[in-house]
Amino acid sequence: MPEGINLAKDTAVSLSGYFFEDLSIGMEESFSKRVTFREIEGFAEISGDNNPIHLDEEFAATTMFGGRIAHGFLSASFISTVIGTKLPGPGSIYMSQSLRFLAPVRIGDMVTASARIISLNAEKYRAVLACTCTVDGEAVIDGEALVKIPSRTA
Amino acid sequence: MPEGINLAKDTAVSLSGYFFEDLSIGMEESFSKRVTFREIEGFAEISGDNNPIHLDEEFAATTMFGGRIAHGFLSASFISTVIGTKLPGPGSIYMSQSLRFLAPVRIGDMVTASARIISLNAEKYRAVLACTCTVDGEAVIDGEALVKIPSRTA
Repeated sequence: MPEGINLAKDTAVSLSGYFFEDLSIGMEESFSKRVTFREIEGFAEISGDNNPIHLDEEFAATTMFGGRIAHGFLSASFISTVIGTKLPGPGSIYMSQSLRFLAPVRIGDMVTASARIISLNAEKYRAVLACTCTVDGEAVIDGEALVKIPSRTA
Repeated sequence: MPEGINLAKDTAVSLSGYFFEDLSIGMEESFSKRVTFREIEGFAEISGDNNPIHLDEEFAATTMFGGRIAHGFLSASFISTVIGTKLPGPGSIYMSQSLRFLAPVRIGDMVTASARIISLNAEKYRAVLACTCTVDGEAVIDGEALVKIPSRTA
């Protein structure tokens, strides 16, 4: 396994996100990904969360959910993807995130994570973003992110 | 890839966590895992967060962190592992989680996630847990989890 991947050379990944001065309230970005058993199995291995509600169909069928569901943090990580790669993107510092888990995500669901700027602090170069994850238009997670953003002048 | 893993037969994973009546304030559990580049690469693939601060050593060396750091949500997912597998464990419903990212986690760091019950609501069968992730005793993440727990009587 390589000790480092030089994304700058190999892919179109941006190395710099927004500067604080280029942000305005209402700006929004999103990221969508389908949650298959492959993602759930991988997330269980990486996180160590092998709760059978995610992995064991026989057990999960006996619960209130009636079958396996994705880890809440798996879908929530898509919010982090929006923050870290799109808005504000690379260079910003993730300070905090709140999450409310509103409804389960099931295997095969397409999850869309969105983040929208709702507040800007020009003295501290910080932004608050309202965050949601939806499946078929229904909110499954919501919360807020606080991010510090590089300034052109500071 | 199997469509389901029958953990009940294959492993020692518990299928049931605590009942609400068995919880008390001060109870605490933890989970430790070393974050290697394997976890970071896997998390990037699953979440879609390919921010070069996590993957591109050449870029990361030019930032305030001086090198690659783990995704905040990767370490935070270990909190979810404590909640979902230990305290309260399987059967509980994860309602919300707050996270403050206090310090970076670097490749090779051993992260210990802990959750401690700080409040119990006997009318709604809910618990609040104070959560931390530490590296070498230093807090890198903190926050609170709100969880609904099965009751023996309800």
